[in-house]
Amino acid sequence: MARLVMKFGGTSVADIDRIRNVTRHVKREVDAGHDVAVVVSAMSGTTDQLVAWCEAALQTRRIFDAREYDAVLATGEQVTAGLLAITLQDMDVNARSWLGWQLPILTSNVHTSARILEINGAEIVKRFAERREVAVIAGFQGLHKETGRITTLGRGGSDTSAVAVAAAIRADRCDIYTDVDGVYTADPRVVPRAKRLAKIAFEEMLELASLGAKVMQVRSVELGMVHNVRIFVRSSFDRPEDVDPHGIPPGTLICDEEEIVEQQTVTGIAFSRDEAQISVREVEDKPGVAAAIFIPLAEANINVDMIVQNVSPDGKTTDLTFTVPAADYQRSLDVITKAKKTIGFKRLDGATDVAKISVIGIGMRSHAGVAAQAFQALAERAINIRAITTSEIKFSLLIDAAFTELAVRTLHSLYGLDQATA
Amino acid sequence: MARLVMKFGGTSVADIDRIRNVTRHVKREVDAGHDVAVVVSAMSGTTDQLVAWCEAALQTRRIFDAREYDAVLATGEQVTAGLLAITLQDMDVNARSWLGWQLPILTSNVHTSARILEINGAEIVKRFAERREVAVIAGFQGLHKETGRITTLGRGGSDTSAVAVAAAIRADRCDIYTDVDGVYTADPRVVPRAKRLAKIAFEEMLELASLGAKVMQVRSVELGMVHNVRIFVRSSFDRPEDVDPHGIPPGTLICDEEEIVEQQTVTGIAFSRDEAQISVREVEDKPGVAAAIFIPLAEANINVDMIVQNVSPDGKTTDLTFTVPAADYQRSLDVITKAKKTIGFKRLDGATDVAKISVIGIGMRSHAGVAAQAFQALAERAINIRAITTSEIKFSLLIDAAFTELAVRTLHSLYGLDQATA
Repeated sequence: MARLVMKFGGTSVADIDRIRNVTRHVKREVDAGHDVAVVVSAMSGTTDQLVAWCEAALQTRRIFDAREYDAVLATGEQVTAGLLAITLQDMDVNARSWLGWQLPILTSNVHTSARILEINGAEIVKRFAERREVAVIAGFQGLHKETGRITTLGRGGSDTSAVAVAAAIRADRCDIYTDVDGVYTADPRVVPRAKRLAKIAFEEMLELASLGAKVMQVRSVELGMVHNVRIFVRSSFDRPEDVDPHGIPPGTLICDEEEIVEQQTVTGIAFSRDEAQISVREVEDKPGVAAAIFIPLAEANINVDMIVQNVSPDGKTTDLTFTVPAADYQRSLDVITKAKKTIGFKRLDGATDVAKISVIGIGMRSHAGVAAQAFQALAERAINIRAITTSEIKFSLLIDAAFTELAVRTLHSLYGLDQATA
Repeated sequence: MARLVMKFGGTSVADIDRIRNVTRHVKREVDAGHDVAVVVSAMSGTTDQLVAWCEAALQTRRIFDAREYDAVLATGEQVTAGLLAITLQDMDVNARSWLGWQLPILTSNVHTSARILEINGAEIVKRFAERREVAVIAGFQGLHKETGRITTLGRGGSDTSAVAVAAAIRADRCDIYTDVDGVYTADPRVVPRAKRLAKIAFEEMLELASLGAKVMQVRSVELGMVHNVRIFVRSSFDRPEDVDPHGIPPGTLICDEEEIVEQQTVTGIAFSRDEAQISVREVEDKPGVAAAIFIPLAEANINVDMIVQNVSPDGKTTDLTFTVPAADYQRSLDVITKAKKTIGFKRLDGATDVAKISVIGIGMRSHAGVAAQAFQALAERAINIRAITTSEIKFSLLIDAAFTELAVRTLHSLYGLDQATA
């Protein structure tokens, strides 16, 4: 008998039929003797409608009161929670809904992107023991204690709610039901031979999530890592007969690296084409130059990702390259040009037709030369590397966008990630 | 400077354009220096959609958990409250939304038709003084203190919320904005010469409301009477130029009879065709007979309206006539037939093609013969009266349904309610 959190996203609860499908998943776990807390998102489309109304409500101002916006948006999850409780009861599963302010899920006061501070799980656990009652919790929402107002956690916040609830009730596992059946070694649309990972370490998943693999919200993976909540990503549309000989359904377990017996050197290859490269040429190689460049960018709310600065050959001037979201390319050039005097550089150039390829794996730590193999493999295919950054468990390469697919497939094969022929 | 509650129903907040129209009404009052609390319903159609989802969620059971149903339904008003607060701020009116659990509006535990027990209006009044902040309150919903769960007040509950808030903050007036421009002496579709009443006493409105004049919820009128909250019914679609020379817009004030200087004997004529008549013939005229008839009907959840029992001519047997909703006619006959032994009667008959005409007016109290005039006027038109009941401020006549319009128009003229030619 285990204690489980089950989280269902918007497409999994899109209408009453799908909510009934969710009920079957929950009932299966309850019937197996597990205590279950369910975290739900809004029915897909609902949140967009609510956002559209908030935007239409503005005519003269440009932004709305985030507290009111949160009050409006939180209704989406409230509806799903109530409906799922009704459907569960209809299938003779004891259940009740919990809203953020009822539990409560206490958060910071940063409306529209609040952080969870504390969850009181005592009542849920008590009801597990007393009446085997399934807790159906509205995701994405919380309460700011001092003001007594509803907060929301931002896009993908329900994942965070689920992992936080799992930590609060010390769940054995947090199952994230979504529309994909796990985490893959690469995007299967680009690499047809990508394979699903049975397990992945928190740190690796964190890198993958930050790189835009949309399976899970970065913050929720972080939270899982901090509280050591085992997260199982699986599809809400799988069938009972899809389980393996051990009774385990298709999916990926995100867990502590200790739990992964057979460590691969490389776990996955990610890429992003939404980057633009900017190079500031012949800046003086002296303290304060980097700050002169990146502070004005930060003040303009531009997220800088890769930063590459080489040791200057003559000790006098150097080139500094960094990437920004493609959408912010022109604005970034303007910011830098405006700060030319304080920075002091000769030339400014850049490109938007670039792609960032990232290779991720905890195993890299103990294996020298992992990156070197990549450089050679890409060179053999005449793919030029514009810039390189490395961290302990990841390295990223900036290349011409045209070579994205070729580079990803090349590296996928290089590190032995290709699936045996299907 | 006054303190006002303004209530807007579903059709008045049906979309963002209409919500903006509501904002204009609120801004006008704020600009005039008044302190304002607004009570809103769900956008029209929303509640029906939510109810439909709840019903679709059931497959095996026949009723849903009323607590979950309330949690789902309460979202409708939550959305409107948030959107109106945003729209008000957009027009530079200081405003914030309040949900039932935030204020809180404490209610009984009878989910789907809870009664308001207590409203804490202190914070609202404090914010009037400190920052002239408009309170936008989600109608229809409350909180049950002990369980901490959301309750709803039942159909038309937002009217009740509005009047209760007005009582709690000691408002000078509660303005009910609706899709009609006031209370009329009769249904204008039946009596084209019906005129709008400038004022009507609580007691009269209570009788009218119970008789199916759908302008206001009975409970809210009751509450207004108990707490002496002056209620002004007006249209949310009127134009600024519609005001009279005293600056008063078209509408009807529901108030204490003391405030109505020029009392009319009769205020209005109401009718209902949804009644059926049942007569129990030759029952023994002894104690306990009425109970033997009406207890089984009550147990079958059948609402009995008019009850007429005549003094028996011989002291031995009597006839007993009563009305029930037309939809319950056959079921009522079955109930009575089943209880024949305990009741002890000779015959049972009835009719569904009947109508109840009611004449309402506080002035009746002090004027003898008001009903007698009606009997004569109807006799002159050969309209047969099947049964009569009277109360202090109302009398009702049961007639053949075919004569409904004729009877209503006849009485409307008789009591001097006809409008001067338009």
